[in-house]
Amino acid sequence: MALSLRCNVKSVFRFVYKSNSHRRLCTAGKATGMTGLPKAQVFSGIQPTGVPHLGNYLGALESWVALQDKYSTVMYSIVDLHSITQPQDPQMLRENILDMAASLLACGIDPTHSILFQQSQVSEHAELSWILGCLTSMPRLRHLPQWKMKSKQKNEGSVGLFTYPVLQAADILLYKSTHVPVGEDQIQHLELAQDLARIFNNQYGEFFPEPRALLSDTRKVKSLRDPSSKMSKSDPQKLATVFLTDTPDDIVLKIRRAVTDFTSEVTYEPESRPGVSNLVSMHAAVSGRSVEEVVRLAEGMDTGQYKNVVAEAIVQKLQPIRLEIQRLKADRGHLQSLLAKGTAKARSLAAPVMTEVRKLVGFY
Amino acid sequence: MALSLRCNVKSVFRFVYKSNSHRRLCTAGKATGMTGLPKAQVFSGIQPTGVPHLGNYLGALESWVALQDKYSTVMYSIVDLHSITQPQDPQMLRENILDMAASLLACGIDPTHSILFQQSQVSEHAELSWILGCLTSMPRLRHLPQWKMKSKQKNEGSVGLFTYPVLQAADILLYKSTHVPVGEDQIQHLELAQDLARIFNNQYGEFFPEPRALLSDTRKVKSLRDPSSKMSKSDPQKLATVFLTDTPDDIVLKIRRAVTDFTSEVTYEPESRPGVSNLVSMHAAVSGRSVEEVVRLAEGMDTGQYKNVVAEAIVQKLQPIRLEIQRLKADRGHLQSLLAKGTAKARSLAAPVMTEVRKLVGFY
Repeated sequence: MALSLRCNVKSVFRFVYKSNSHRRLCTAGKATGMTGLPKAQVFSGIQPTGVPHLGNYLGALESWVALQDKYSTVMYSIVDLHSITQPQDPQMLRENILDMAASLLACGIDPTHSILFQQSQVSEHAELSWILGCLTSMPRLRHLPQWKMKSKQKNEGSVGLFTYPVLQAADILLYKSTHVPVGEDQIQHLELAQDLARIFNNQYGEFFPEPRALLSDTRKVKSLRDPSSKMSKSDPQKLATVFLTDTPDDIVLKIRRAVTDFTSEVTYEPESRPGVSNLVSMHAAVSGRSVEEVVRLAEGMDTGQYKNVVAEAIVQKLQPIRLEIQRLKADRGHLQSLLAKGTAKARSLAAPVMTEVRKLVGFY
Repeated sequence: MALSLRCNVKSVFRFVYKSNSHRRLCTAGKATGMTGLPKAQVFSGIQPTGVPHLGNYLGALESWVALQDKYSTVMYSIVDLHSITQPQDPQMLRENILDMAASLLACGIDPTHSILFQQSQVSEHAELSWILGCLTSMPRLRHLPQWKMKSKQKNEGSVGLFTYPVLQAADILLYKSTHVPVGEDQIQHLELAQDLARIFNNQYGEFFPEPRALLSDTRKVKSLRDPSSKMSKSDPQKLATVFLTDTPDDIVLKIRRAVTDFTSEVTYEPESRPGVSNLVSMHAAVSGRSVEEVVRLAEGMDTGQYKNVVAEAIVQKLQPIRLEIQRLKADRGHLQSLLAKGTAKARSLAAPVMTEVRKLVGFY
């Protein structure tokens, strides 16, 4: 893809092109920061849902780690203001924030290379969200598919649930972010952030860059109990989901019980054989091999034997992460201080942007 | 009314009783602060629409001044975050904020007795608003009459226009306000603040007092050109509205051209003779006399002669205010510094409340 070549960056990311984006990508490609990395501001957020699962890790977090070596400024926010759009137990939320921080660090988010911070501790997020809300029309939000879906489930939902895409836009624009790693289900929310950047710039003068999506090569890990649906934290079936803190025994048990089919051979046919194909794709992802390679390695094994190989590969990958999460959680003060340092850095970036925004809007 | 008697406060305010409010009023009546005044936290906000008019002054600002001597802590906020729910020219907004600050001070808001501050400079307003929005249901906002009215006029309006009653609730609760001087058209918004205090307390433990309305004796000043409608800043008829900065000549001209009727006698019959009754009620208000008294004074005069008397009384009242506005505006730096001092005081009250709120919600 254009940026990867021009920036000489071997990237697992591809860009979502929007009108007029090619010119901007070229510009971004030419500019480099102090570190020699492309001068870009990468931002993404994750809700504090506690310890992530293998699907979160392979689908997003591993890519987040990779981005640290590819862009000059990379920010990851634990977006606790978003989490309260659904009812939360305060004690649980508090723990979940620290669990998520420990997990991100254990996965390889390096506080010397990126800014890991807690959204609610940077008041500018809510402030900018208010201002952007005054530039957002009601129908624009009502037509977002996530609201349509969630409000139906939740019998209308809260104002926070309705307006959270505006807060997401504020999260991104507050740091003048240029690139946002997102899942495909978030593309329309990123488009809102792009629209709001344009609307703000039209009204108050050129200020916010239009952030662009970084879509990672999608690795969708499926439920071990129902390979037609995504692996999910909230799956009621205990054996469906592998968490980063699962012990080797947990992992072996869950993989052994993974739903496959009545064919014993190991093949990769996601449509007709979703169960075994899910094992193959997890195996490929955790071992850093291609799907073809792992299928070749499994030649001659039946799915029962193959499950042991997959379980072992997952254990190998997750064991150091699990131990590091344990280590980090054992020293709560240190963990809190790491997060506080990241938050201080985020504040120091947010404050001058909001000062400018307030001036542009006419507050002083 | 109960509070006035129990607190031994001669008040022009009456309380809006809600269920169970009598007990609370008694409690409030017994407690007194350091100053010997009833220990209460009064909060109100005004949008920076520039220099207020006579209707604003007699309808609200004069009461605001009186409240300073009646309660221990009185806060008045220039609510610029609210003003951007409608499109604003930044340069105009900037001037309007200072004009409103100068006007409030000139009317008698005394920064040694009350806290006059600019809402947008206290980031906790937007923060608390986000949290309260997560506790507000969508139908609750949709049914507020002001949204129904405004959204119809404005073809759906912005998200900010829809959610501003939640920000109003945050404005009030952020200072744990106990009393809020409001106009009757704002009662339903205050009820939302009361509901949100209850909902928050139910979910996170007793924290916010339920704020109660202080309804001033309503003095509704009417348009001088159409006494069936309220005096308004945005009246397209230049002669309809008396501004606090109008010169004596402006005032005399506007009062002389005030619409009355074909009866020359001066009487107070608001239903059948709204024009002359508007003059009588303005005259009573600016001179500190009762309506009966001024009608007696006008005996034997025709409305033409009476208009001179009314104009003179208004000039007497507004002349010192106008000169003080001029004086304050001549030293922009001093005015900004007065506002900044108030804002610093407001921040020092808001910060510990938000720290507690963040703890209760589970952010740390």
